[in-house]
Amino acid sequence: MQATSHAMLPPRQIHLLRRNSGASGHWISGIDCLSWRFGVETNTIQGWRLVPENCKDYVGHYMLGKQYREDCDVVAKAALEYAKSLKLAGDGKDVWVLDIDETALSNLPYYARSDVAFGQDSETGTTSLVYKSNKRKELVKTGYRILGNMGDQWSDLLGSNIGNRTFKLPDPMQDSETGTTSLVYKSNKRKELVKTGYRILGNMGDQWSDLLGSNIGNRTFKLPDPMYYIS
Amino acid sequence: MQATSHAMLPPRQIHLLRRNSGASGHWISGIDCLSWRFGVETNTIQGWRLVPENCKDYVGHYMLGKQYREDCDVVAKAALEYAKSLKLAGDGKDVWVLDIDETALSNLPYYARSDVAFGQDSETGTTSLVYKSNKRKELVKTGYRILGNMGDQWSDLLGSNIGNRTFKLPDPMQDSETGTTSLVYKSNKRKELVKTGYRILGNMGDQWSDLLGSNIGNRTFKLPDPMYYIS
Repeated sequence: MQATSHAMLPPRQIHLLRRNSGASGHWISGIDCLSWRFGVETNTIQGWRLVPENCKDYVGHYMLGKQYREDCDVVAKAALEYAKSLKLAGDGKDVWVLDIDETALSNLPYYARSDVAFGQDSETGTTSLVYKSNKRKELVKTGYRILGNMGDQWSDLLGSNIGNRTFKLPDPMQDSETGTTSLVYKSNKRKELVKTGYRILGNMGDQWSDLLGSNIGNRTFKLPDPMYYIS
Repeated sequence: MQATSHAMLPPRQIHLLRRNSGASGHWISGIDCLSWRFGVETNTIQGWRLVPENCKDYVGHYMLGKQYREDCDVVAKAALEYAKSLKLAGDGKDVWVLDIDETALSNLPYYARSDVAFGQDSETGTTSLVYKSNKRKELVKTGYRILGNMGDQWSDLLGSNIGNRTFKLPDPMQDSETGTTSLVYKSNKRKELVKTGYRILGNMGDQWSDLLGSNIGNRTFKLPDPMYYIS
């Protein structure tokens, strides 16, 4: 009886599915920056090289304002809640894969520079590299303890703050993986981890190339990043 | 020289990574609804059964306002652009996997009902089913032409508007898939498609369970859906 009366309620008035304007009812073109971000963050918009010109201010305000921090917090809270629910085997084989840039560390001071402009500038947008020992130094300064350190280059594993134990992986430049995407490369590295007996319980990154492919782990956590795209 | 002068520019002042408030600087707890939506739309928040109480109004306004439509449009535009770039083999084996609810068809008139309240009500939120023949009728009314119709139940393939050709799949209730998730079920069905020689060029859905797993297709397109979650 309850169900029947529900079924007879008139539907609420809703808007049209396409936004029209003016007497002729033409569709308004142009990019809505919040929607662009939705497309980017859901991996629907792929292979972009620069933030769209008209979204430069939007992305800047987003990154410097409270929303980016709130978004990061929601992801961190979800990860923490999940991590607390886990029963670890205690054999040291339960691992969490953590991307570094815009995940374990923020490069916001760099991207906020006026010449970088949050990925708007083509010269500096995604090409600058921070050296790895500096990166490890930052990690340690931020409070991380580097228990394991894995890399395909000896330069990953030498120098300061190299961690309690290092693992040398085969050099992809010397096998068939040359020129591969980050997605394929990271998938292969995870596959090696799993083959070695590790169980990937969590996987966190700001790029979908961190979180897709093979052996993605039991659960993925996507951090926001409307500044750059890595395939 | 250019690079050197860039490197010496002082970084712009940026906000703290955690939002504090008041003299004691305590972290403000509670759910930010825009961030909750970010978590949901990136598959970071999983397994939720209801829209959080304090986000009911937010989700309602989002679904009825312009943002949902803009978000859908960005996805549709990305899909169209990609589809136009494809070179089809012409052998009828190039396919696009399209979810129905909140993808090919909108159930917004249903979810906008005051007793359903955009997934807020536990009784009606995700449990109501629309019969399949009605669904096909709506598809045809919307302008779709049903060339193929695939289902594991004969009730999928009989009745009105069954399409030009029907394909009967094995009944999952009669094999080992009973009680499986939508993700596993859809993955298996896509695997069957690929095994039969079909090439999945595109895959569009409002749930991550449409777009993850095996044989997800060459490219996925995620439509917004903050109303319900299907694992």
